[in-house]
Amino acid sequence: MIVVVKPHIPEEKRTRLIDWFKDMGLGVHVSNGEYQTVLGLIGDTSKVDMDLIESLDIVQSVKRVTERFKMCNRKFHPEDTVITVGESKIGGGHFAMIAGPCSVETEDQIVAVAKAVKAAGATMLRGGAFKPRTSPYDFQGLREKGLELLKIAGKETGLPLVTEIMSAADLPYFEDVDVLQVGARNMQNFDMLKELGRCNKPILLKRGLANTLNELLMSAEYIMASGNEKVILCERGIRTYSDYTRNTFDLSAIPMLHELSHLPVVADPSHATGIARLVSPMSCAATAAGADGLMIEVHNDPLHALCDGAQSLKPEEYAEVVKKVLAVRAAIV
Amino acid sequence: MIVVVKPHIPEEKRTRLIDWFKDMGLGVHVSNGEYQTVLGLIGDTSKVDMDLIESLDIVQSVKRVTERFKMCNRKFHPEDTVITVGESKIGGGHFAMIAGPCSVETEDQIVAVAKAVKAAGATMLRGGAFKPRTSPYDFQGLREKGLELLKIAGKETGLPLVTEIMSAADLPYFEDVDVLQVGARNMQNFDMLKELGRCNKPILLKRGLANTLNELLMSAEYIMASGNEKVILCERGIRTYSDYTRNTFDLSAIPMLHELSHLPVVADPSHATGIARLVSPMSCAATAAGADGLMIEVHNDPLHALCDGAQSLKPEEYAEVVKKVLAVRAAIV
Amino acid sequence: MIVVVKPHIPEEKRTRLIDWFKDMGLGVHVSNGEYQTVLGLIGDTSKVDMDLIESLDIVQSVKRVTERFKMCNRKFHPEDTVITVGESKIGGGHFAMIAGPCSVETEDQIVAVAKAVKAAGATMLRGGAFKPRTSPYDFQGLREKGLELLKIAGKETGLPLVTEIMSAADLPYFEDVDVLQVGARNMQNFDMLKELGRCNKPILLKRGLANTLNELLMSAEYIMASGNEKVILCERGIRTYSDYTRNTFDLSAIPMLHELSHLPVVADPSHATGIARLVSPMSCAATAAGADGLMIEVHNDPLHALCDGAQSLKPEEYAEVVKKVLAVRAAIV
Amino acid sequence: MIVVVKPHIPEEKRTRLIDWFKDMGLGVHVSNGEYQTVLGLIGDTSKVDMDLIESLDIVQSVKRVTERFKMCNRKFHPEDTVITVGESKIGGGHFAMIAGPCSVETEDQIVAVAKAVKAAGATMLRGGAFKPRTSPYDFQGLREKGLELLKIAGKETGLPLVTEIMSAADLPYFEDVDVLQVGARNMQNFDMLKELGRCNKPILLKRGLANTLNELLMSAEYIMASGNEKVILCERGIRTYSDYTRNTFDLSAIPMLHELSHLPVVADPSHATGIARLVSPMSCAATAAGADGLMIEVHNDPLHALCDGAQSLKPEEYAEVVKKVLAVRAAIV
Repeated sequence: MIVVVKPHIPEEKRTRLIDWFKDMGLGVHVSNGEYQTVLGLIGDTSKVDMDLIESLDIVQSVKRVTERFKMCNRKFHPEDTVITVGESKIGGGHFAMIAGPCSVETEDQIVAVAKAVKAAGATMLRGGAFKPRTSPYDFQGLREKGLELLKIAGKETGLPLVTEIMSAADLPYFEDVDVLQVGARNMQNFDMLKELGRCNKPILLKRGLANTLNELLMSAEYIMASGNEKVILCERGIRTYSDYTRNTFDLSAIPMLHELSHLPVVADPSHATGIARLVSPMSCAATAAGADGLMIEVHNDPLHALCDGAQSLKPEEYAEVVKKVLAVRAAIV
Repeated sequence: MIVVVKPHIPEEKRTRLIDWFKDMGLGVHVSNGEYQTVLGLIGDTSKVDMDLIESLDIVQSVKRVTERFKMCNRKFHPEDTVITVGESKIGGGHFAMIAGPCSVETEDQIVAVAKAVKAAGATMLRGGAFKPRTSPYDFQGLREKGLELLKIAGKETGLPLVTEIMSAADLPYFEDVDVLQVGARNMQNFDMLKELGRCNKPILLKRGLANTLNELLMSAEYIMASGNEKVILCERGIRTYSDYTRNTFDLSAIPMLHELSHLPVVADPSHATGIARLVSPMSCAATAAGADGLMIEVHNDPLHALCDGAQSLKPEEYAEVVKKVLAVRAAIV
Repeated sequence: MIVVVKPHIPEEKRTRLIDWFKDMGLGVHVSNGEYQTVLGLIGDTSKVDMDLIESLDIVQSVKRVTERFKMCNRKFHPEDTVITVGESKIGGGHFAMIAGPCSVETEDQIVAVAKAVKAAGATMLRGGAFKPRTSPYDFQGLREKGLELLKIAGKETGLPLVTEIMSAADLPYFEDVDVLQVGARNMQNFDMLKELGRCNKPILLKRGLANTLNELLMSAEYIMASGNEKVILCERGIRTYSDYTRNTFDLSAIPMLHELSHLPVVADPSHATGIARLVSPMSCAATAAGADGLMIEVHNDPLHALCDGAQSLKPEEYAEVVKKVLAVRAAIV
Repeated sequence: MIVVVKPHIPEEKRTRLIDWFKDMGLGVHVSNGEYQTVLGLIGDTSKVDMDLIESLDIVQSVKRVTERFKMCNRKFHPEDTVITVGESKIGGGHFAMIAGPCSVETEDQIVAVAKAVKAAGATMLRGGAFKPRTSPYDFQGLREKGLELLKIAGKETGLPLVTEIMSAADLPYFEDVDVLQVGARNMQNFDMLKELGRCNKPILLKRGLANTLNELLMSAEYIMASGNEKVILCERGIRTYSDYTRNTFDLSAIPMLHELSHLPVVADPSHATGIARLVSPMSCAATAAGADGLMIEVHNDPLHALCDGAQSLKPEEYAEVVKKVLAVRAAIV
């Protein structure tokens, strides 16, 4: 960690600051410039509170040189983590195709979609039962009942199940779910992350609406530090001024996360763009950027059928996407 | 709600869409233009899923004309809500000065700060016991013990207590707290909002890092729709590209929220800027913009004293801010 | 265009507004709801000033339904525009590989890089002579002399030349340049766009730091409306809160621009990420998203060689990228 | 400047980097840590290209410790700059009230508005003649003729004139204008900034849509380094995800710019919010934040009169704002 001390600070104050760092067990290299003094802190600075130091009046700025995430850091764990879910794997060269409807609605619906996406090449089934909605007046999902229907579809197809959990208090309902998804709005619900760190299921952790990669990795670290190392990171678009797509799909995050961490990274083009006709090109793009899997919404419900299209893909469109994605994947390896 | 249908859509499909709206009990006004057809939906559209409609292939765009928040909407409740906390009030002309340390550390510390801020003019005491931290390795607060110490300071000074809750599971510990704060990272932790809607304490709801005013009001609506109408909104800075301050203090949100809603609005210049020397001018600015109160960090702990300054203000600096704020308030009334 | 009138507006004022629209030659459909009146304006609304109308006190909001860009709009020109530059083409299935150094430095340098990128598969040579720099104290480019050196490299290799112009006053120097580049900072330098619309060279128009797709297309429209229809759009990253890459590469813009416009779209992964090791995956991703070409920085200058790497790629790295990009392109067609 | 070298870099490469810095005439302090080496560069680093160094493969990150702006830097010029315009002054305790219509339309209009704002307390007259518009089909201003009308209004009232210039080629028309305004879209039109640095008029430099304070100050530096030290900075809102106001008014920029620079800072609440009814509270807020002046749109044209309100204020509303602003200013001094 590097601490830049402001110019014209009395010797005595600077000395007290240096002594304070030394009392924390850190080595301090001092380098005096014309306009400022630079302190290089050597040792384990991961527990040093950077905000606190930056807040001191005699300090101009602070720069952390080593990352604070340890367990998910590739520096300390160079090999890719491979996570096994049922018979499929993700990471380290294994590619996951996660597909299914936004919400579980009826047994017929979820079983039909599950069969269709399996036939098209999906390796896991997604479907929302507990739904985070901006408005209390929106449909909040079928909850426990939705999970029951999802399990039926899982049994019929053999596909592992991925679904969102919104509160640690609901954990007992999720016993038969294979992968627990943490939504973007809960990425920094630290209490829930700690609880999920105590369960033994893979966690698919979505990047928050306006979170940095460092914050995403620190949230993964919360889960891992509590005992669960099976974390899958997910890029799902960030909020920016740009208004043509629902979010801005930050695909550079994929190779960057691979550089910083050994955890698998999947991408969600359906939520990132909010526009069905962009799902195909953006699935190809995410794959070309090195994603370890894709999470795509597929539907077959009557309303959408009625109106001939929707934000979700139809099963036959999904089958086309799978083909293109596999071709792109073959091209970049 | 206005639905713009794409050009060149077969008559039959358009008719099915219109019939579908009518089946929901809505009136539909059709207006045919050269390049598109515009449908005006009349009736209670608050439960219509705008995203779903926008996702339809035949739809070009959707615009909601009436807000979906009802209980916090000024249209249906023109008078300012006034919330009483102990002997102080907030909203409708009543101004709250909430002050205290970032974290509760020791009994001596919190009691000393409480006395100092009271003497300076504070009307409520804040202090963090349960602390949301980006890193699992950072200090997470004294938790239950911190609340105990906070209560002691409350008793010694008579100041009502404001402190953050991070999980509905912790509610039993907060019995003697006067105002429950929901942090920016939990603004869309909908399960917790619903639980807080079932308790009878005022909720200070902070705007999320990258949330719109509409989303903030929908989160207030979650609390109110569950039965608790005592919600205080808080602007605390949003995340933008701008890097000089920790967040960008969106002060226009204050008059805008007053226009949209009858709920009181406070501002938090300490978190919005992250820089102690900006707290004074930005407190004056938030007051001039019409805030109903300010939440300001004040400390007296030895480390900060040692280094002669901090992100938090010292009690004597806070006293200066209170004076200026009251002068600004007098100027704009 | 749809205009939503506020509730409880006196009949008389509403009538005056409607008459005012009619005086502009527009048809007006009126649809009365419980809380507002919706006016649908029919006719050529492209010259109606939306900001002005939105500013009226009796108006709640305005929504433009038809795009204001006409000449670059795919609706009125369904076929892809193909632009010919020397012997190479771009758009409509033709892919451009534009490569070269950030700045033209010496004859040896630019000729060596030009030969190397040509051998690797580049179809056009880029190189900065007039350089927009944040600081007046930074190197501002070799200017006219840089253009002379660039021409030498063009003659030696037969590659067409792409280089940035910063002021219409410099146009005489650019006679032998094949494609004029408008940088992100000048995307809304409307006076220069008009001047470039009067010359007969293809214009590579970069998206501004924080501009919407609509604004980018309106800037293309400035050039086209002045008489020059040869515009190439370029996505080069936008400014967001995200801090790992220099900008956020908004790849969804590529298929979206193809949907909105018939103009070719290239992507610039070098500037979008600012990190050499991300250029390869992001070049593949941009190609998979449907780009019509890539603009990539390649160097061979001694400093970078000395230090074994740089933001720009080395020629041998560029050759690898070309191979991968062509493989991805083959996969998605 | 601090350069952090990556871990495990061969001694030899590190040495070459250090020698390269020394060849630039810089002193280098080396501090070796477990995971990285930190180099502190001492001397005049204002001409060191930070991007170039950051791009080197052996470098992990670079941090500039001293600002690159010199002439506008408060460190080297502690006293506030006071700029005199006609009989009014701005900066160093002098407050400017700049007001007038968005566009100059007719002689009657501009003279009437000029008289009205003067009576209300304005100290300078603004009015657009050369108008930057997103669309080539929008009204582009009356240009030279608009300047002529503006001059008439200036003569009739004695108010100094502020108006936007869009191209250095137009400079001859601006001879009788007192303050030249550079719009947000041209903040980094470096060629124009250099030309304006060669004229002897105060320049009102608006912050770009998505520019940092550092970039704003570097643009001021362009003007000053070319010989013109009379620069007035203007905060006019930045582009963020937030959609209730046209831009997000970044008021913390005002005290921050005062800390970094000695130049006067004005604020433009009309453009920052785009909503007339927010101009009054946000004018008060900007004043409370320490602005040296306000730029406010005031109209009296028939359309707006017809519709009873607009984004611009009516003269009588402006008079109310002036009163409140003066009261706030008195409160904070």
